Amino acid sequence: MKHNPLANISIVLTETTLPANIGSTARAMMTMGLQHLLLVNPKHPIDETSIAFAKGGAVLLEQAIIYPTLSEALSSQSLVIAASARSRHTPRPMLTPDSAATLIKTFSQAQPSARIAIVFGREDRGLTNAELTLADYHLQIPANPNYPVLNVASSVQVIASYLYQHLSCAEVLPNSAQHPLMLRSEWDSPPITHAEKQALIDALLELFGAVELSQSDKLPKLTSRLWRLAARLQLDKTEHQLLMALAFQLQKRLSTPPS
Amino acid sequence: MKHNPLANISIVLTETTLPANIGSTARAMMTMGLQHLLLVNPKHPIDETSIAFAKGGAVLLEQAIIYPTLSEALSSQSLVIAASARSRHTPRPMLTPDSAATLIKTFSQAQPSARIAIVFGREDRGLTNAELTLADYHLQIPANPNYPVLNVASSVQVIASYLYQHLSCAEVLPNSAQHPLMLRSEWDSPPITHAEKQALIDALLELFGAVELSQSDKLPKLTSRLWRLAARLQLDKTEHQLLMALAFQLQKRLSTPPS
Repeated sequence: MKHNPLANISIVLTETTLPANIGSTARAMMTMGLQHLLLVNPKHPIDETSIAFAKGGAVLLEQAIIYPTLSEALSSQSLVIAASARSRHTPRPMLTPDSAATLIKTFSQAQPSARIAIVFGREDRGLTNAELTLADYHLQIPANPNYPVLNVASSVQVIASYLYQHLSCAEVLPNSAQHPLMLRSEWDSPPITHAEKQALIDALLELFGAVELSQSDKLPKLTSRLWRLAARLQLDKTEHQLLMALAFQLQKRLSTPPS
Repeated sequence: MKHNPLANISIVLTETTLPANIGSTARAMMTMGLQHLLLVNPKHPIDETSIAFAKGGAVLLEQAIIYPTLSEALSSQSLVIAASARSRHTPRPMLTPDSAATLIKTFSQAQPSARIAIVFGREDRGLTNAELTLADYHLQIPANPNYPVLNVASSVQVIASYLYQHLSCAEVLPNSAQHPLMLRSEWDSPPITHAEKQALIDALLELFGAVELSQSDKLPKLTSRLWRLAARLQLDKTEHQLLMALAFQLQKRLSTPPS
């Protein structure tokens, strides 16, 4: 079986107050293939609310391990990263979710069985300086400087998403995601809006109807194909006017009875 | 003033059922500098629960605009991306959060005033095929194939985090995030664990104490500095044994009264 570095990672929640947040964290972990949830002295135990918020991640709550102190939770971990938005008195190298995922990938390749912990703090006060001290690295999610306050489960979701993107063994990206369609790069006129696109598609559908190419039972599929074609066209406003004028003239000729 | 592409992006929630999710979405948006929230026919209006969950993003709820249909919400948008985990009958180019952010960056540079919408579906059923049809691109968050079910606000948080990372004008990354500390690349022996690191630090602290270099009022700062140093050392188990043996012998000599 292929080595799965995600299986070596533990998420550590420190003195969480709300049982709902423990549940939401379990759900976020499950969506990104993380399995190990460690709880340090939670203020309230896992309860029905946790399970409700965990949804498909509830199994992680059953397997969660509770420790009295952060130091004990970290005991068997070889790489410790602390998520933190706080200033700190003995700074560590600061990672982003992206660089943390790269670092963990490198570490896992060199040390396939070593354990890795990512530590999250209290909802209101984060981690203490003494707790931050125990980490090899600190991690900060780049955020709006005026309001960088992510919910703890949202922080786990963001970091776990970067980890999944970098570390998952699954073939996660369809080909077009790695090679997205080229965007049109030269524009002499502004791009059309959704309403203009809608008008063009309506005009085209009318033309299809006028020449009896659109039986009513096939129309939904036709509409869908026209939208996709219009997306690919990336029309500007001038081109849109040209096509609309053409459609208008065609429609006019078609509706005029032959003389 | 510098062009801020995040200001051109709208988040569109389609027929949301839970007012709490509208609130959590507003909070997620605010943390990542997104401002425009469009609601299509929400099943329940914005209420006190929404405001409670929005926290520092509550101002976005006041400015949210409600539309009766998705098509009307999209009317003035020039680039439409639909977040979707569903199979679809007329496939669009599929983006990841990462490639979507790159695409939006390119589009914004070519068209600084064109508007961009990212559309999210219902909590239970996502977007209909007819709604997916209106999008230029589809976006999927890579996730655990056995449970890819992210909460709608969590999806917004993940996608908005990638957008912020790629599009924010703010200097978001401290230098060390772009150049994380080198990880030791050659290991003849497994890395030490947190507990082993703790044992070494305890031994060193004891030595500092024995030679009377650690006045008790300076000890907390000393501990913190030793942890950081130990993090940088990246010791393996053999090196750890050597240092522990040395510390043990030093301690033994120091505690033996001079003959």
